Amino acid sequence: MATWRLTIRYDGARYKGWQRLGKEDGGSSIQGKLEAVFATLCGEEVLVTGSGRTDAGVHALAQVAHFRTTASLSSQSLLAHAARYLPDDIAVTAAEEADDRFHARYQVKEKVYLYRVDIGLWPDPFERKYAWHIPEPLDFKSMARAAQDLLGEHDFSAFTTMKSKKKSYVKNLKSIDIEKAPNKDSIVHIRLVADGFLHNMVRIIVGTLIEVGREERDAHSLSGLLDGGLRSDAGPTAPAKGLFLERAEYAGSE
Amino acid sequence: MATWRLTIRYDGARYKGWQRLGKEDGGSSIQGKLEAVFATLCGEEVLVTGSGRTDAGVHALAQVAHFRTTASLSSQSLLAHAARYLPDDIAVTAAEEADDRFHARYQVKEKVYLYRVDIGLWPDPFERKYAWHIPEPLDFKSMARAAQDLLGEHDFSAFTTMKSKKKSYVKNLKSIDIEKAPNKDSIVHIRLVADGFLHNMVRIIVGTLIEVGREERDAHSLSGLLDGGLRSDAGPTAPAKGLFLERAEYAGSE
Repeated sequence: MATWRLTIRYDGARYKGWQRLGKEDGGSSIQGKLEAVFATLCGEEVLVTGSGRTDAGVHALAQVAHFRTTASLSSQSLLAHAARYLPDDIAVTAAEEADDRFHARYQVKEKVYLYRVDIGLWPDPFERKYAWHIPEPLDFKSMARAAQDLLGEHDFSAFTTMKSKKKSYVKNLKSIDIEKAPNKDSIVHIRLVADGFLHNMVRIIVGTLIEVGREERDAHSLSGLLDGGLRSDAGPTAPAKGLFLERAEYAGSE
Repeated sequence: MATWRLTIRYDGARYKGWQRLGKEDGGSSIQGKLEAVFATLCGEEVLVTGSGRTDAGVHALAQVAHFRTTASLSSQSLLAHAARYLPDDIAVTAAEEADDRFHARYQVKEKVYLYRVDIGLWPDPFERKYAWHIPEPLDFKSMARAAQDLLGEHDFSAFTTMKSKKKSYVKNLKSIDIEKAPNKDSIVHIRLVADGFLHNMVRIIVGTLIEVGREERDAHSLSGLLDGGLRSDAGPTAPAKGLFLERAEYAGSE
């Protein structure tokens, strides 16, 4: 039995999200596409487990996943097979054999999400699937100020939509950086680093920060949403298309 | 009668090119889309004339075009109408009333084209419609060396496909620059500036330079293709998807 660790890059625009829905989903999920392609390579069913799910329309620059197989593979043959049979909006950019105890979801130590905002006067045709267009002026200084109050270990239940059986809403939000995209003045990057994220957490934080940027919400008010705040008091969920899973980090990874 | 000068940005992936084919083309051309939208705004048929045609799959960062109308418009209403009714892969980014003698095609003084090459080991999902993927190593120094021989005023008939009734194949190629894309090491930008380009000229020059980069063609051999060389002696036509009309310059424009 071998365990393979994959790095996967995808344009999520066409998909219902990372997670396969049911046994067969007709290729509408990234996970389903990967499993179908690796099943033919391995000659057996495979389960591809990601560092976490991404929603419909959300992209990944470097998602990490693993699968286990009895087939004997080389990294090169795996990558070549993936390049040949995956659709051109999904790419496996790295594959390495990992320790049998490696688990992409349970062992992730840190995740980095990037949210892209198109602040051009008119929506950029090349960004229509990759950024949230907000033509009104935004006060980025206030947004950066407000973001500081969210940092650290907190209960983020006001910033998530799924609350049924989850035991803990505590996450350690390590940083939120807001800056112009390198080489594209009309795009703003909001980058969040945490030990993990709740469902929709990035998008609700971004939606709330945008309200601050529009001066619809006080820049010093966000701490009131933490540690028991209500979802209804936070801002709207920002559109999926602006969101990119940029990186997932593991103990021992560079 | 007013003359409007437009700056247009488009993702050409879905279109058969700039030029409307016939009286009505069912929205398969950029020009056709623009004319349909401005006809409803102006209450009369309009002819939108670009600085030049772009082929199917070719993009524009800033195409320039003009149209004339008896309707009385403001720049703001024109831009708002365009933003509302154009598909999201076409945007009018600027509109200004121009001198009645202004003609986007006849008066263009200089054009800048950008060709993007994806040199990553695996094709980047986010570049699948915006770059030519070439995973084999390329000798960029040789390509830059070879490009120098093409500069200046020459007959470029070896670098075009349409030769029927054209009077002159002489163009002044002012520069070819080859460099890594800012902030994306896996993308190479080949940027060409000339007083004008023949049909497919950029793509055939790029195809020829790539042969040099692959060491399939001598870096000192390109001058032999100029001033009467044969199309069959030049390289292949590079794929449309990597090509962007970056800018069109006019006398008096900044």
